[in-house]
Amino acid sequence: MLKGIPKILSPELLMVLCEMGHSDRLVISDGNFPAESMGKDAIVIRCDGHGVPELLDAILQVFPLDTYVEKPVNLMEVMPGDDVETPIWDTYKEIIAKHDSRGADCVGNIERFAFYDEAKTAYAIIATGESALYANVMLQKGVVTD
Amino acid sequence: MLKGIPKILSPELLMVLCEMGHSDRLVISDGNFPAESMGKDAIVIRCDGHGVPELLDAILQVFPLDTYVEKPVNLMEVMPGDDVETPIWDTYKEIIAKHDSRGADCVGNIERFAFYDEAKTAYAIIATGESALYANVMLQKGVVTD
Amino acid sequence: MLKGIPKILSPELLMVLCEMGHSDRLVISDGNFPAESMGKDAIVIRCDGHGVPELLDAILQVFPLDTYVEKPVNLMEVMPGDDVETPIWDTYKEIIAKHDSRGADCVGNIERFAFYDEAKTAYAIIATGESALYANVMLQKGVVTD
Amino acid sequence: MLKGIPKILSPELLMVLCEMGHSDRLVISDGNFPAESMGKDAIVIRCDGHGVPELLDAILQVFPLDTYVEKPVNLMEVMPGDDVETPIWDTYKEIIAKHDSRGADCVGNIERFAFYDEAKTAYAIIATGESALYANVMLQKGVVTD
Amino acid sequence: MLKGIPKILSPELLMVLCEMGHSDRLVISDGNFPAESMGKDAIVIRCDGHGVPELLDAILQVFPLDTYVEKPVNLMEVMPGDDVETPIWDTYKEIIAKHDSRGADCVGNIERFAFYDEAKTAYAIIATGESALYANVMLQKGVVTD
Amino acid sequence: MLKGIPKILSPELLMVLCEMGHSDRLVISDGNFPAESMGKDAIVIRCDGHGVPELLDAILQVFPLDTYVEKPVNLMEVMPGDDVETPIWDTYKEIIAKHDSRGADCVGNIERFAFYDEAKTAYAIIATGESALYANVMLQKGVVTD
Amino acid sequence: MLKGIPKILSPELLMVLCEMGHSDRLVISDGNFPAESMGKDAIVIRCDGHGVPELLDAILQVFPLDTYVEKPVNLMEVMPGDDVETPIWDTYKEIIAKHDSRGADCVGNIERFAFYDEAKTAYAIIATGESALYANVMLQKGVVTD
Amino acid sequence: MLKGIPKILSPELLMVLCEMGHSDRLVISDGNFPAESMGKDAIVIRCDGHGVPELLDAILQVFPLDTYVEKPVNLMEVMPGDDVETPIWDTYKEIIAKHDSRGADCVGNIERFAFYDEAKTAYAIIATGESALYANVMLQKGVVTD
Amino acid sequence: MLKGIPKILSPELLMVLCEMGHSDRLVISDGNFPAESMGKDAIVIRCDGHGVPELLDAILQVFPLDTYVEKPVNLMEVMPGDDVETPIWDTYKEIIAKHDSRGADCVGNIERFAFYDEAKTAYAIIATGESALYANVMLQKGVVTD
Amino acid sequence: MLKGIPKILSPELLMVLCEMGHSDRLVISDGNFPAESMGKDAIVIRCDGHGVPELLDAILQVFPLDTYVEKPVNLMEVMPGDDVETPIWDTYKEIIAKHDSRGADCVGNIERFAFYDEAKTAYAIIATGESALYANVMLQKGVVTD
Repeated sequence: MLKGIPKILSPELLMVLCEMGHSDRLVISDGNFPAESMGKDAIVIRCDGHGVPELLDAILQVFPLDTYVEKPVNLMEVMPGDDVETPIWDTYKEIIAKHDSRGADCVGNIERFAFYDEAKTAYAIIATGESALYANVMLQKGVVTD
Repeated sequence: MLKGIPKILSPELLMVLCEMGHSDRLVISDGNFPAESMGKDAIVIRCDGHGVPELLDAILQVFPLDTYVEKPVNLMEVMPGDDVETPIWDTYKEIIAKHDSRGADCVGNIERFAFYDEAKTAYAIIATGESALYANVMLQKGVVTD
Repeated sequence: MLKGIPKILSPELLMVLCEMGHSDRLVISDGNFPAESMGKDAIVIRCDGHGVPELLDAILQVFPLDTYVEKPVNLMEVMPGDDVETPIWDTYKEIIAKHDSRGADCVGNIERFAFYDEAKTAYAIIATGESALYANVMLQKGVVTD
Repeated sequence: MLKGIPKILSPELLMVLCEMGHSDRLVISDGNFPAESMGKDAIVIRCDGHGVPELLDAILQVFPLDTYVEKPVNLMEVMPGDDVETPIWDTYKEIIAKHDSRGADCVGNIERFAFYDEAKTAYAIIATGESALYANVMLQKGVVTD
Repeated sequence: MLKGIPKILSPELLMVLCEMGHSDRLVISDGNFPAESMGKDAIVIRCDGHGVPELLDAILQVFPLDTYVEKPVNLMEVMPGDDVETPIWDTYKEIIAKHDSRGADCVGNIERFAFYDEAKTAYAIIATGESALYANVMLQKGVVTD
Repeated sequence: MLKGIPKILSPELLMVLCEMGHSDRLVISDGNFPAESMGKDAIVIRCDGHGVPELLDAILQVFPLDTYVEKPVNLMEVMPGDDVETPIWDTYKEIIAKHDSRGADCVGNIERFAFYDEAKTAYAIIATGESALYANVMLQKGVVTD
Repeated sequence: MLKGIPKILSPELLMVLCEMGHSDRLVISDGNFPAESMGKDAIVIRCDGHGVPELLDAILQVFPLDTYVEKPVNLMEVMPGDDVETPIWDTYKEIIAKHDSRGADCVGNIERFAFYDEAKTAYAIIATGESALYANVMLQKGVVTD
Repeated sequence: MLKGIPKILSPELLMVLCEMGHSDRLVISDGNFPAESMGKDAIVIRCDGHGVPELLDAILQVFPLDTYVEKPVNLMEVMPGDDVETPIWDTYKEIIAKHDSRGADCVGNIERFAFYDEAKTAYAIIATGESALYANVMLQKGVVTD
Repeated sequence: MLKGIPKILSPELLMVLCEMGHSDRLVISDGNFPAESMGKDAIVIRCDGHGVPELLDAILQVFPLDTYVEKPVNLMEVMPGDDVETPIWDTYKEIIAKHDSRGADCVGNIERFAFYDEAKTAYAIIATGESALYANVMLQKGVVTD
Repeated sequence: MLKGIPKILSPELLMVLCEMGHSDRLVISDGNFPAESMGKDAIVIRCDGHGVPELLDAILQVFPLDTYVEKPVNLMEVMPGDDVETPIWDTYKEIIAKHDSRGADCVGNIERFAFYDEAKTAYAIIATGESALYANVMLQKGVVTD
């Protein structure tokens, strides 16, 4: 643990967030996402037992979103015919609005299998224990200017 | 994640709990414990951001305490002159009572530096983000009889 | 060994089952399946000396089958011209029926070489000592909802 | 699997038995033995879900017992005050008699903590799922003369 | 060394033969075969100083040939214009006849560069010190039925 | 790089500082210190080309000094007979005063060879390019309380 | 540190510069460049906290630029629509002129995504903490003639 | 060092020469050749400070040239427009004539970039300190007949 | 294989013999010697299926015996009470006489357990398939003077 | 190779010299020194085929000798009764005088077995092909002051 840094960020996660550069992508996946198989070429970080919102909030305190693209945040679209609700998306948008002035405007959606393809080329995937469905979120890192 | 197994138990933690045998010891350490240096000869498992109680409760669902010794659970004694309170110990005792009929009777105390020495020979050390002080707890595994 | 978890599940197998996610596939192969060569990109777990039925039954206690596809379980089709009997398939279907309400309806067949191709992209392959022929079975993991 | 070799012997176990030499010791441990911690300097081979008798019988088909010592086989003594029965020891002696003409005469006993010390210097430890208590057995390899 | 197993089979070779499954291929190469470069994706086992016949004979004691294909054994064809004699092929056929009732009928030939291509996808390549030329032989493993 | 974290802290250094616990020690060594040989049992982090003061200042922004001991900071004493000046020690004390209310009072001295002995048991050693002599400094981590 | 060699060159960097040969390329990247993901097939060397100019100057003292190509130095072009200034390029050109008689004439430009593609095949990427934007520079090594 | 073997052949180089087989290729590169990047899929052996002739002469004492091809030795052609002299080639031919009766007749030339492509698939690349330009030489191993 | 070097010497064995220096010891062990456990701190080289005499003869062609000690060759003494014959020792002495003018005079004996202790500090141990008993031999390397 | 750095210094050797600090010791050993066994806890660098003088001269161009001790250079004393001449020691002293104003005065001697003990704790050992006897030399690194 360190002064002033959210303690949910493990030493390894802190290192990975720090070594990422402009345009690298990070997936915070829900508990049912096949994080290990999607992440064979990525760094997979286990955060079992944690929900996505607390991690998203902690990460955005140190991790800027890309301002060179319109949608640096992407969610996995609900499959046609699957009538699941996704109230957690509103939670995500509120958290993002705390850290980025664009708020919900910088959040996009990607079809399920396209999301998988993107995830396979991400720099890192965080495996959480989030029990909400369709709760995966992908972040694209921006430029650190300070 | 698996059916019927607490999702706070990561794949690696589950493996380690399973490969431990009768009389092996496990330390669930608080966020300030020097887990990595104490655990140079042990397996260190990061559970950053979690408190000790939720891990203790999940672990005791699958992990039996040793019945061949009187005190299979040990806490780190408060240093003389340090007037910190340790209400979290009561929480631990309640959780233990849920899983072992001996309850608080099977919980002992070890002086700080003796605790460090014991920790160095433990099979595994779990590094949590528990912010309570003197919140380390050491468990000795018993026999699985079913 | 752990309380309440079938002891045929080794620490490593437990870890692998736990780290698999929705839609990842697992092959439980018979004793003559070329598990190591098919599994060059997979995790291969040795369970020499065990039959497939006892492993299948233990695995399905903790591992949900995918409900997003019709046939989350697949067997290797007998080669044309090979007049071997496969009574073990009935045993598999009974075991599956104990753990999934769809029973035999969720079990499909795949031609031998197509099965090999699928196996090469599985997340893990378990090498058993099952002496029955055509006794390989492939499972697709579902969502853990509790 | 190979022709004429018991299929409970995994490829790795076969390799380890083969590379052992005269006077090297092998522990076949029961399911509660702390095989991983005792075996930090040894090779640990997992045989989860198997009992000791079937492994002992298979191993003795290829593995000669030392004839240079009187007791090449050793069991862990029951702790004073522990009134557990050990009928499995008779089974072991019958199996040994099938493979070595000295039969039960070559089987000795070692006190629990002395057994642990010996185990720590063994060449290999096999971790089984044997549920009988005090069911650990240590074998010392003899000379292969054919 | 083990009782009843040819002592020319090293611990590692025994392990590899055992972990191979139905249809996996093994090359026993002569002393001039580029075993290491052909075997970049295979397991290469050094048996320097040994001839192929003694290894072939020992291997076939534990390793069944595939009965699902007509030619489970293949030799490298002599290059057109190379007038070398290959009396060692007769030795091979006699050895095969000792272990497989099909005898010489199950031995085929493959053109040199096609043989190289096949070798690159073999499960394992044994590098011998065989001084006869064109003395490489490729074996396809069958089903173990006992 | 991350928002709000000094960019002189590399990803690996950040990870190491974070994984250290209460009472672990860190050496920031000058350019002539034998960091690699002293740190054979430690983690050695290269910060070639940097001076100690800029690293000390950055580290103390996230790293609390131990309040359980009187001298959590220690410098290497000048060898008797060596008449080198150490103005950099004043710089260190000013930096420490910015981050810890005890200021210069928490800074002690250790004789050269005792310093080496302590360094060998440190958790990590940072190798800088500091050209000042006797410019090594050892920090003991305190408790993170927020 | 060594006599006569700039101390900002770490032992590892010195080794890498030395093992590079004629026509190998080196990227000195700014603090926001995705050095780790671009450098998956390269050697990535961390120089956090340093600017590019001090590294460029030190490197060119030991590293000759290729004289077989016209532009052995390349900068990343500003993206159309991005109105950032790049005064650091003038600094680079002055430094290059100190070490290579061609001076600014041997400096070219590459479009952003083409630069990424080139970077992926570089021999090594140095990750600096340079805060100027578009401050990446790619060097092609020449022949050492002394 | 060994009796009767040139002492310029390091233990590792001797091993590599020995494990090469018929038709494997070896590059002895000059000091400016990009040996490490060309040799990413090869074994790279450092012989810094040595010239090519002394290595070539030592290697050919134990390494036969291929007699199945016309040009088992190949040099890198001078680039058109580069008016460098290559007197070292005559030295090479004299050395080859000492060890192979074909002498200079078995030496061919390959265009620079084709040479690079061939080098990428070589079994091993030796990095020398040879200061002559265009001094790279590629050898194809023959059959050992004694 | 290489020209003029006995082909029973594998690439790895050749490397090990070459990297040994004056006074390093090599054990050529018989098939029942516990080579792997004695050699935990040594390099163990498998030569399964070979006898000791053919290896001894090949090794002494390249490996000089130490002339600074009286007995650079040592055999394991027969245990008191064990009435085994050791005709193979005469074979060893004849082979040694071929390569060292001191012949049998430079061959000594070491008691069994002292031999084990010496073996544990040897540089390398060769595991053969020699079936003769008490057939282990230890060689001390001399100075290469050519 | 690099501009201005002796090309006999390999990339790895350069790295090792650079990472050494004040008081670390380096052994440049002759061709018969048991460099690999003495250097089990050190870094061993092969420079086969080179003599010690050319390496010593190149190393001292970048490596300062310790001025805190009287004898930063040490030679291995000739064994009593061994009447070998050591003219190479004069060569060493001339080379040292070129780089250190103390010249031969800073060169001491150590008895053979004491030299071995010192060598075992050195930071690195360079294995040369030097054929002169008693030609080992140990250097202690000083402070880099520029």
